[in-house]
Amino acid sequence: MNNQAPVGVFDSGLGGLTVLKEVISELPDEDVVYFGDTARVPYGSKSRDTIVHYTKQILAFMKTKKVKAIVVACNTASAYALEEVQASVPVPIVGVVKPGALVAAKETENGRIGVIGTRGTIRSGLYRKCLLEYRPDVEVFQKACPLFVPMVEEGLWEDELTRTAAARYLQELKDAGVDTLIMGCTHYPLIRPIIREIMGENVRLINPAHETAKRMKEILEEKQMCRDPFGTPSKTPYRFFVSDDPESFRDFASKILNFPLPMPEKIEIEGY
Amino acid sequence: MNNQAPVGVFDSGLGGLTVLKEVISELPDEDVVYFGDTARVPYGSKSRDTIVHYTKQILAFMKTKKVKAIVVACNTASAYALEEVQASVPVPIVGVVKPGALVAAKETENGRIGVIGTRGTIRSGLYRKCLLEYRPDVEVFQKACPLFVPMVEEGLWEDELTRTAAARYLQELKDAGVDTLIMGCTHYPLIRPIIREIMGENVRLINPAHETAKRMKEILEEKQMCRDPFGTPSKTPYRFFVSDDPESFRDFASKILNFPLPMPEKIEIEGY
Repeated sequence: MNNQAPVGVFDSGLGGLTVLKEVISELPDEDVVYFGDTARVPYGSKSRDTIVHYTKQILAFMKTKKVKAIVVACNTASAYALEEVQASVPVPIVGVVKPGALVAAKETENGRIGVIGTRGTIRSGLYRKCLLEYRPDVEVFQKACPLFVPMVEEGLWEDELTRTAAARYLQELKDAGVDTLIMGCTHYPLIRPIIREIMGENVRLINPAHETAKRMKEILEEKQMCRDPFGTPSKTPYRFFVSDDPESFRDFASKILNFPLPMPEKIEIEGY
Repeated sequence: MNNQAPVGVFDSGLGGLTVLKEVISELPDEDVVYFGDTARVPYGSKSRDTIVHYTKQILAFMKTKKVKAIVVACNTASAYALEEVQASVPVPIVGVVKPGALVAAKETENGRIGVIGTRGTIRSGLYRKCLLEYRPDVEVFQKACPLFVPMVEEGLWEDELTRTAAARYLQELKDAGVDTLIMGCTHYPLIRPIIREIMGENVRLINPAHETAKRMKEILEEKQMCRDPFGTPSKTPYRFFVSDDPESFRDFASKILNFPLPMPEKIEIEGY
């Protein structure tokens, strides 16, 4: 395996950019290939079979880009597909669920942990399963928040509508007295201020993106796969691919990443 | 062409069921093959190229079912793809946009017509174009309402959140003094009471589904393609196909159609 090869990061669309941001910050010397499945977004409301099928296509695409490691930046794909595909992927692959669950299990004091995510992520039960593996003594309270993704994608990050929806979704987690809340969807950190306001200052908000990037860094270091920062610099350290509408993706991504993106390349993901 | 063959109806997912309901009511003797692209829903936020590509795959599927005529029940697909694919389809094909525009052009008194729909439908400008073709003297006011589809799919048909979003979206159409409003997305008739409440009693609400079914009836009669009601009855007059999650589709569809659906068959639409 070539240490100068890029790390692959993929998501159902835009949300994974919050993970990419953490990957760039933890692994500034690494090149990255990002794929966003903007033609088939969202994943959160679809079935396990479909998500596994889509994930396999994306992994086949990543193979053509000769990535040395893969971050599954989408919670739904991590929850539904990662276990099933893991064995057939010849490079290290990390999802967002396990690293997020691990840090929540470490940080809770009262043993009451909340998880919010898409219907798919919540239905999979993977956060609960991982949390109970790490800490059999905790209680897990899950809540699907299906309107958050469209609201974030509509740019309603500080909007009254989002606040109303959030107050409704989060009430039962407040009532349950959770002291730690996993934001189990990559879109949710973008409305962190609203979640913070409703949950109060004393609840820890866990962003699995951050833990996932740290986990990927550990793996590359353990396996001595880090890119040589003194090697030949890449012409295009960050390359972006999407299945639909590269312009909208670039506009949205430039806002999240705070740097001007090159135009993403549109690919026919169904062909992989 | 076999007059006993079914009529094909397709949509990005569930919304087209409001059109199917009208087709069943206008054409009770016809058999129907319905396809809902539940794996790739929604269409409204995606690009023209992608919608044309998806529409061509669905038409290829409909061909295998030997349909004698096709209703494009999705506004976004009608707006983006119908003109482009029409010439290559060997059977009559009707979208929802033209019939909806025609009746609105007839019914307006003050010549001020509002159109609400997905981003794709509004961006295509097809409603405006058709309205101005039928009535060059009207003024058209368009508004994309991207949160309506997820709100309807979440079942928030009479919810305060939907009312708040609707009040915001519709205010500028009220301010413009429209006397006629086209509900240019198949999901919207399901929140008609909220739209009615906000727009007031004096604004005509046009549901293109109804006009589309009537148009299909006219075509079948003109071309003498109606099914013989005294011929051999079908064992399965209504057959349903989806690209994902047949169970959820059946539950939702049974509610809209008010009869218990047979289990839809899941197909791999990407293969067509």
